[in-house]
Amino acid sequence: MSGRVAVTGGCGFIGSHLVDRLLADGHEVVIIDDLSTGQTPFVEGALAHPRAEFVRADVKILEPLVEIVRGCAAVYHLAANADVRRGPEQPRKDLDENTIGTFNVLEAMRRAGVTTVAFASTGSVYGEATVIPTPEDAPFPVQTSLYGASKLAGEGLIAAYAEAYGFTARIFRFVSILGERYSHGHVFDFYRQLLDHPDELQVLGDGTQRKSYLYVQDCIDAILLATRASGPPVGVYNLGQREYCRLTDSIGWISAHLGLTPRIVYSGGDRGWVGDNPFIFLDCSRMRALGWAPTLSIKDSVIRTLEYLQANHWLLAARR
Amino acid sequence: MSGRVAVTGGCGFIGSHLVDRLLADGHEVVIIDDLSTGQTPFVEGALAHPRAEFVRADVKILEPLVEIVRGCAAVYHLAANADVRRGPEQPRKDLDENTIGTFNVLEAMRRAGVTTVAFASTGSVYGEATVIPTPEDAPFPVQTSLYGASKLAGEGLIAAYAEAYGFTARIFRFVSILGERYSHGHVFDFYRQLLDHPDELQVLGDGTQRKSYLYVQDCIDAILLATRASGPPVGVYNLGQREYCRLTDSIGWISAHLGLTPRIVYSGGDRGWVGDNPFIFLDCSRMRALGWAPTLSIKDSVIRTLEYLQANHWLLAARR
Repeated sequence: MSGRVAVTGGCGFIGSHLVDRLLADGHEVVIIDDLSTGQTPFVEGALAHPRAEFVRADVKILEPLVEIVRGCAAVYHLAANADVRRGPEQPRKDLDENTIGTFNVLEAMRRAGVTTVAFASTGSVYGEATVIPTPEDAPFPVQTSLYGASKLAGEGLIAAYAEAYGFTARIFRFVSILGERYSHGHVFDFYRQLLDHPDELQVLGDGTQRKSYLYVQDCIDAILLATRASGPPVGVYNLGQREYCRLTDSIGWISAHLGLTPRIVYSGGDRGWVGDNPFIFLDCSRMRALGWAPTLSIKDSVIRTLEYLQANHWLLAARR
Repeated sequence: MSGRVAVTGGCGFIGSHLVDRLLADGHEVVIIDDLSTGQTPFVEGALAHPRAEFVRADVKILEPLVEIVRGCAAVYHLAANADVRRGPEQPRKDLDENTIGTFNVLEAMRRAGVTTVAFASTGSVYGEATVIPTPEDAPFPVQTSLYGASKLAGEGLIAAYAEAYGFTARIFRFVSILGERYSHGHVFDFYRQLLDHPDELQVLGDGTQRKSYLYVQDCIDAILLATRASGPPVGVYNLGQREYCRLTDSIGWISAHLGLTPRIVYSGGDRGWVGDNPFIFLDCSRMRALGWAPTLSIKDSVIRTLEYLQANHWLLAARR
């Protein structure tokens, strides 16, 4: 495997790991990030590599992207607003960063003659799924969050570009991802809370929320495998775990790992916030049929994440 | 039924009929249109009415919409780029007019405290459906046109606004609509061609395309019925006919009605253009369960449309 490829959101949690893997596989890698949430320390190792190049660019602005992606064999489009919770406070943000951002990446690719795209979508596009575990061809869902709606719109644009302009597309609907460089979500929030006050943990919802988490390297394995595999012009793949946990399980693992017994204060209700989905659990048999399987359990992913955060307190400060 | 309501695209083919019906039902009606494709003659009758008001505004610009919709009980959002065929020539147009336009209408409503919306979507969101007739909860489709993708994005935004801000929404997935004031599509194109040269008709595709058409007043009946009916916060309804025809059937009806026997020149292929769907046929049992049924057959709708065009040659010139 070689050739020049681009990763948008390349300084992010998942993007930076993808960059490392693409470099290890022999690619020239263009790292595109606007550094709004990306972290330059995540790509310090990558940038020591002669085949890596960083370009600060914002996917909300089309024109510069054309020359940036020119000559690439593929674009891995991971740049996005991933702050699902705050959607209702700033309803235009998901539209701008996720929908229009995806349009700009596609249009830059078209103008530059690049026609292979991999896209980080989300299991949130299933809304409150009526079939669980949810397969890719589940009943046509009704959206429940601005984040999910903005990613669904991105998926639609990608498929339409495939049909109109001969693109090849791989769309990945993720559950939540854990692992090194993880920098938002419940493990991050809980660890920070417990550093500040080890005897109390405030939890959104009632703790019964069921969640499925995937380890970031397992996620990257799947992205690389499906993007390199032959298949239909538009391939849609769920990425998740065979298992799920309760939020209370995760609280137990985190507390035990840290040797703490905090008092748990629940905010109540069956979900964390408006538009939160109390249960996303995906049928990943399509991805497994390509020979993929996750290597790390949810519990081990939570512990791995905690160990990383314990060794990287700078990240807690950077994301305040 | 009374109260102030707004219709975006109120000078368009379907919008202007909806305006007439809402006025007849006792509403105050704000007609919103940017006149890019809308036709002022369509609302001449409506504007003679003291309860009608026309505001020239473009849904691509948010700010003015806030005061325009303020005080309305509901917004019927029909303004859209409906030129499906030309999508690939101007890929940003569907995004701007259909996706961002819908966001702006929703956001204006939210700021003005208006929370009931009816939305003209399309059967094109089903892409190449695997289940025919296609129900609203068909398998999660892959998009095949920029137009369908832009409407799907609009649907997603509407559902997310319903969840986040307590909107009530009615989403209508139309087949193609025929009837008085029809001003684009195959009947329009064929009639214009046959006026210019009665002995030859050029047809995109091979004529075998199967299509289902609904008469515009039947479409309006359904929109009004479902918007006024109680139901879930987000109701999605297919609107179409029980029957379908081949394009060759329609060519036969048109030729017979005009007393012509043109030579038919097919461009070939099983579809009219890139992203065209050779067969959209919707399962409308959800709408029928509310007591709705179409009153005019496809053939009668084609004839009704032709009769209108024969009496309104100004429209042929206006849409050149």
